Formats: sequence, structure tokens, C-alpha cells
Amino acid sequence: MSQDKQKRTPLATLGEFGLIDHITKDFKNTNQETILGVGDDAAIMDYKDQIVVTTDLLTEGIHFDLVYTPLKHLGYKCVAVNVSDIYAMNATPKQITVSVALSSRFGVEDVEELYAGIKLACDYYNVDLVGGDTTSSLTGMTISVTAIGTAKADKIVKRSGAKKNNLICVTGDLGAAYLGLQILEREKAVYDKDINEQPQLSEYQYLLQRQLRPDARKDIIEELEKANIIPSSMMDISDGLSSELKHICKQSGVGCHIYMDKLPIKQDTMAAANEMNIDPVIAALNGGEDYELLFTVNIDEYDKVIAIEGVSVIGNIVEDVNQQYIITPQNQSIELKAQGWVAM
Amino acid sequence: MSQDKQKRTPLATLGEFGLIDHITKDFKNTNQETILGVGDDAAIMDYKDQIVVTTDLLTEGIHFDLVYTPLKHLGYKCVAVNVSDIYAMNATPKQITVSVALSSRFGVEDVEELYAGIKLACDYYNVDLVGGDTTSSLTGMTISVTAIGTAKADKIVKRSGAKKNNLICVTGDLGAAYLGLQILEREKAVYDKDINEQPQLSEYQYLLQRQLRPDARKDIIEELEKANIIPSSMMDISDGLSSELKHICKQSGVGCHIYMDKLPIKQDTMAAANEMNIDPVIAALNGGEDYELLFTVNIDEYDKVIAIEGVSVIGNIVEDVNQQYIITPQNQSIELKAQGWVAM
Repeated sequence: MSQDKQKRTPLATLGEFGLIDHITKDFKNTNQETILGVGDDAAIMDYKDQIVVTTDLLTEGIHFDLVYTPLKHLGYKCVAVNVSDIYAMNATPKQITVSVALSSRFGVEDVEELYAGIKLACDYYNVDLVGGDTTSSLTGMTISVTAIGTAKADKIVKRSGAKKNNLICVTGDLGAAYLGLQILEREKAVYDKDINEQPQLSEYQYLLQRQLRPDARKDIIEELEKANIIPSSMMDISDGLSSELKHICKQSGVGCHIYMDKLPIKQDTMAAANEMNIDPVIAALNGGEDYELLFTVNIDEYDKVIAIEGVSVIGNIVEDVNQQYIITPQNQSIELKAQGWVAM
Repeated sequence: MSQDKQKRTPLATLGEFGLIDHITKDFKNTNQETILGVGDDAAIMDYKDQIVVTTDLLTEGIHFDLVYTPLKHLGYKCVAVNVSDIYAMNATPKQITVSVALSSRFGVEDVEELYAGIKLACDYYNVDLVGGDTTSSLTGMTISVTAIGTAKADKIVKRSGAKKNNLICVTGDLGAAYLGLQILEREKAVYDKDINEQPQLSEYQYLLQRQLRPDARKDIIEELEKANIIPSSMMDISDGLSSELKHICKQSGVGCHIYMDKLPIKQDTMAAANEMNIDPVIAALNGGEDYELLFTVNIDEYDKVIAIEGVSVIGNIVEDVNQQYIITPQNQSIELKAQGWVAM
């Protein structure tokens, strides 16, 4: 927990345009689709293929708590969660715009930290920062990111294409980001009671990183391309596996059977769940913020898809839209419920 | 001033997805460039020509005051100010995304009002609402809009193309939105002292409309196209004529002479400025929020450009970037200063 004793230069010393110049000076446009970036009424782009566009709004106290979220991580995360939606269309992100509203409690150094994280993510995901807005707010920080990506029309994957007998796949592991949040909230409560108490965080490094600095699955999209697999449906897991799978079922008009013992849950997640009296399966199903990919493929592609590191097959699509079940090792079918813990 | 006694249905009764469905059900996609709108990880678009993208973030208490801003007007305005940036590139807006963060003091009826205004603007400017986000905030309302438009590469107009001897043109009239804001603030102060005092607003209708429900100059872009004029530089006037003209000079590497007696100021603006002891020229130069277009054209196009209703020629571009002057009727040259009154 930060003691918050850093020097803060008031934002007003630079003014709006000075601030924009200052924070964008290290950003370079590298994608050939970017014709003109920051500095005019609008950015200009030139695309040959179709484009996909997504946007997210993150507000302080709802989506992030600056007591335990370093601004650099927050900057990285707000880009990662947006490009995650672009990858979920089987597309490649190319540009982002970032708008930030800040109250007077933030200084130039804070904005620098935030944009250092944004720049790290832009470099990693190879996206150009082409626009945005910095403005005042009466209270707190709000960040709005819009991401633009591209793909050939016949490669774009929607939520609505899942078919009977398709395999249901997820990447990585589930539930860790949720457990990371619970750990942070627990240590914050301890700290709030006694500010001399040092938070006990070192053993939870994996969980905290999943919560504070998630990565989008750029690597999986590249592996799917190499393996010549186009999923029949796909989305990213931001609100929790249950909720997302129910979206795919609803939009595809199908049902699903997933198997409890196939859910990819890491040992770190199991241990922390155990310690905190949380059912790890519930964390995996409903925890949210994992930013893994959920997708369906034709059953013929089983061998190709399990050969990709980090992909688990967790079940299959069934015809009846009313059959949306998770099946226990004892062969009990439990109805999937979309009860995200994430605030509206 | 609203007495705020309306019924309010808590947002939580619909949930995030219910709310999105509810507010987007009346929106229809009409542009052929829109392949897929709301409801997937990202919207899908298909463009033949170059695209232009702009974004704005509006926060309660900084950009709007809900004491005197009807939510329907606010919804309309947040679309209008974004498409204004698209027109300022000499492009045609096609899609917008709208994200809204709301505290619990807002109800479903408020969101309906806001989106009724957004829909009016979408219909008027012929843009499709293709995405967005509705989320919670701890305090107040924040709105983020991203607009996407298109134009052929050789028709897009940047800020950087103004040349020596070009004519400087503005559309409509200036200063009215600023005066409208002053009137609203004055009446709010009266009302704050005595809530039985009825605000005196009827005689200021034009000024209030310019502040609360501005329109972007779609019509002028169409007229320029018909007249076969491509401006050498263009931007919209959101922060005030002085500030915007200085941007054009800086980015084009030129100076400017504008003439005080050529500034288009309406009689309503003059009268209110007089009443409030404000210099109308200062209001026109620095007031902001007029959302008129400022552009430069080749001197050969003088006859064509003055034939367009609503266009005034206010001066000319000069070679020396250090000569950025407004010239009085007494032939005095005063340096242009970019002192927007708009908060950062």
C-alpha cells in the first residue's frame, strides 16, 4: 500500500495541450494503417480489410482501487482489456485512443506513470496511440479506451457461430484474477485498521499479477492462425466463464455441457481459495477478469487445438439451448448461472 | 431549473445487459459500412475509403451541469460535438460508440432521456450506434463518445495545410454559446439563493440553444462538396476562435490577419454581452463551444465560398508565423492570444 508521499506537479502547470504533448511525445506510430495520429480533429487510418472497434470505460472505485493498483499497471491493464476484445474477434489490434479524466488530486507524475503503462502495452501489442482526451473531473479518475483492429472478413469470429458438437475451449487458467482481488481487499482491510501493518502479498504473486496486470491472449490468436483454425465462435472472459458461455449459447441458439474436472484452475488459485474459504470452481466460473479466450471449434480440429499450449477443451456444444450445464465428476448436471461478481 | 420530482427506477433492476438491450432497442443500423453493431466483443465495419476517428470525454460538473442541462439535450450534444470533429476533417460520420458511467442517483428514466437525445442526433447525422459500455461510478455522470467517419484520401482536410494568402473563413456566428452559459450560470445563482425565483430565460432562447443543444455543420460540408471546394485546412471551433486559429497557424507554419469588424456576431449575442458587461469580441474570440467550422481556402475561391450561406471571410493567412493578429477598425494590430475560458 503506497504511502503517497511523492512529489506532485499540478496538472494545470502544463495545461491541456502541454499535457497531451508531454505524455504522447514518446509514442511513435508504427502500423502502416495509421496515416495520422494525435494532433488534429481526428486520427486518419487506411484499412484494406474489415475493421473491428471496441470501447471500455473504467471508473475509480468501481473498476480499480488506487490504494493497491499502481498507475503503471492500471495503464497497461486498460489497454490489455481492450485489445483482448479485438483478439476475441480473431482480429489484430492496430490503434487505440485513450481519454482520461482526472481530479486535482492527481499530478503530472501520476499521468506519466499511467502513460508509461499504456506505452508498455502499446509496444507489446503493437498498437498505435492515435488520439484521446485529457480533461478534469470533480472526483477521481475515469479512463476510456477505444481499440481498433482488423481482419479479413472471412476470419472474423463472432459469438453467434457455435454449432452442435463443437468443442468448447478455454485458454490459460481461470479464477486467479478473482482470488487476486480477494487477497488485495483482505490486505487493504488489514491496512485500513492499522497503517503500520505491512501487507502479506509475496506468496500471492501470480494471483496479484493476474488481477493487476492481465495480458490479452495475443499468443493464442497467433497459434490459431498458424494451426489454420478459425473458431466457430469466440469471446474473451471478462465477466466470468459462466456468463460468457451463456452469451455464446444465447447468440448461437445452442446449449453446452462443460465438465467440472476439465476446468483449468492453477494450484495457486486452489490454495488461496482454500485459505479464504472460497470454492475454486465458483471462482473459475464466475470470478471474471481473467481475460482468457473462450471459443468453440469443430470436433475434427480436436488434435490441432489440444496441440496448442495453453488451450483446454472443457466440454461440448449441444443442440438444446435450454441445456446449459456443468457436469460434476459424479455425473450430476448443474445449470450454469450467469452470476458475475463484477459490479455493473 | 428542474424540481427533480420524477419517478426513478433503479438501474440495478435491469442489470447491465438488460439496460444495454433496453436503451439500444430503438437504434437501427442504416449505414452500409456497419456490418455488426452492438452485442459482440467488438463492432465490425467495412470501409472502402480512409477512416477518421475522434473521441471525447465529458464529465459532470466540468463539461455539463445537470441543474440546467436537460439529459436529452446532453445526449444530443455529446454526439454533435464528436461528429463536429469528423466534419472538421471534411469527412462523413458513420458510426459512434457511447459509454456512460452513472452513479446510483440516476435511474432508468434518466438513461432513457439521455439515449433519446443520442438517438435524435444519430438520426439527424445519419450515424449508427455500434457499441459502448454502461457502468457504475461512485459520483456523477461521465460520457465518452468515439465517432468514426470516412472520406476519400484526397478530400480529407487537416489543420496543417493553410498557405500564405489563403482566405480565413468561419461558419455561422460566434460567442453565442458562451453567452448562453453565462446566462444559465447567472440564473442558477439566483435560483440557488431563492428556489421560488423563476429563471428568466425566454428572451435568451437562441443563446441557450447554442449552449445546450449545438449542432455540427453537416450542411456546410455538403455545400463545400457541391461547390467543389476542398479547404486547405480546417478545424471545428470548440475552444474558441483564437485558440483554434493559433493551432492552424502553428501546424501550418503560417501567420494570420483577421479583422475585428468581420467577426460574425449575432444581435442576440451583442445584446446579452452588453447586458452582462462582457466584450462581445472577446466572447467571439475566446468563448468556445460554438462548434462552427474554421477553414482556409485559396483566394481564387472567394466568389464560390461567399456564395455559401453562413460562411464569413474574416481575414487571410500571412507568411510569418509570428504575425497572428486581429486588426481593429482603427487599423491597430493586436496579438491573438489563446486564452480559452473552457476548463481543462
